[in-house]
Amino acid sequence: MPTRYTPSRRSRVKRAYQRASYDQEAVFAVLDAAQMINVGYVIDGQPYVTPTFHWRDGNTIFWHGSSASKMLRQVRTGVPVCVTAAIFDGYVLARSPLHHSANYRTVMAFGKAKMITGRSAKEAALKQMMEVLFPGRWAACRENHSQEIKATTVVAMSIEEAAAKTRSGGPIDDEADYDTVKVWSGELPALHPYGTPVADCRLDPNCPLPDYLDPYRGR
Amino acid sequence: MPTRYTPSRRSRVKRAYQRASYDQEAVFAVLDAAQMINVGYVIDGQPYVTPTFHWRDGNTIFWHGSSASKMLRQVRTGVPVCVTAAIFDGYVLARSPLHHSANYRTVMAFGKAKMITGRSAKEAALKQMMEVLFPGRWAACRENHSQEIKATTVVAMSIEEAAAKTRSGGPIDDEADYDTVKVWSGELPALHPYGTPVADCRLDPNCPLPDYLDPYRGR
Repeated sequence: MPTRYTPSRRSRVKRAYQRASYDQEAVFAVLDAAQMINVGYVIDGQPYVTPTFHWRDGNTIFWHGSSASKMLRQVRTGVPVCVTAAIFDGYVLARSPLHHSANYRTVMAFGKAKMITGRSAKEAALKQMMEVLFPGRWAACRENHSQEIKATTVVAMSIEEAAAKTRSGGPIDDEADYDTVKVWSGELPALHPYGTPVADCRLDPNCPLPDYLDPYRGR
Repeated sequence: MPTRYTPSRRSRVKRAYQRASYDQEAVFAVLDAAQMINVGYVIDGQPYVTPTFHWRDGNTIFWHGSSASKMLRQVRTGVPVCVTAAIFDGYVLARSPLHHSANYRTVMAFGKAKMITGRSAKEAALKQMMEVLFPGRWAACRENHSQEIKATTVVAMSIEEAAAKTRSGGPIDDEADYDTVKVWSGELPALHPYGTPVADCRLDPNCPLPDYLDPYRGR
């Protein structure tokens, strides 16, 4: 049996619930494929959403930023946050306007954000972020100055509950419309490739492109 | 002089403020380029974020969904929302771990969400969404049933204040690191093309691909 989150009212998907999954595996797959997350939090009753970069270790989502940021100063106190990830996979063109749709992979996750403290714990978390993207790169860079680590806040949110919601495939039209509406229908896929790496203008031209950048080409 | 939002404490960018712009033109450019938004709102003190699809008319951001959705039922009362758009443009690989960065275009916008009511106003707004993406398509589809319009909620948020924040270009390293750290540095660009349109399996093979899909190819 796959591990499954137990949805409360907060995370239960009401609309198009057949597209929802509470399986950890489905939630992790979207979180790992997404390049950014959006972190929602409340200050004095006002909602805020901050787009940021994330990584994951087991059931915990991490993000980081300047110790001066509004979002990070707020979440250090263990406040409730809502984290979403959304990947747009294309438009779906149907025969009637309101059956138009989109293909997507999304996650909505709830938990409490907590600051990671202490140089070694922060460095270990930040190293993990880089190791996921560019394995081996951390060790090839210069060592961190302690002031750099101090100026960086790392936040962790253990997922209390989460739902993934995804749509894929072509349009689903009313049966009567398939034969009578003569309009092109189908999918317009959105792709997410990486381009050719661009060397920094001050890079030694003899410095080789590392192997860990290869998988991004044509991905 | 470009029209400019006046930032209050809520929208003023504190971190890397040199990357921020309060110009309406800059905010609109990111909103128009983004394929999705994230809508943040509060229910009983709990933050929620919902990824969804949007369109824009002047200073107003629109989104829509099922009349049954939690988010849309909440915002109909004119509650404060925070809307973000985020486009990921690539990773920036620097010579030290904490100078690694990313290129992105983001917007954080604040306002109050209000429901659009009445069939003609809702249809006009929904038509606008499609006209932006696929000009002329609305008229080629079958007409809406009144029940379809009833089951759809359209929400509008006039932007009270907003900030765009963008980063582009290569790494900015410590001067001492340029010569001493021998590691590949530069940008890994993230691209956003569309793929070849995929016809619905039940589409008449003689139905031509409409001209409005051409600009998406190779975009």
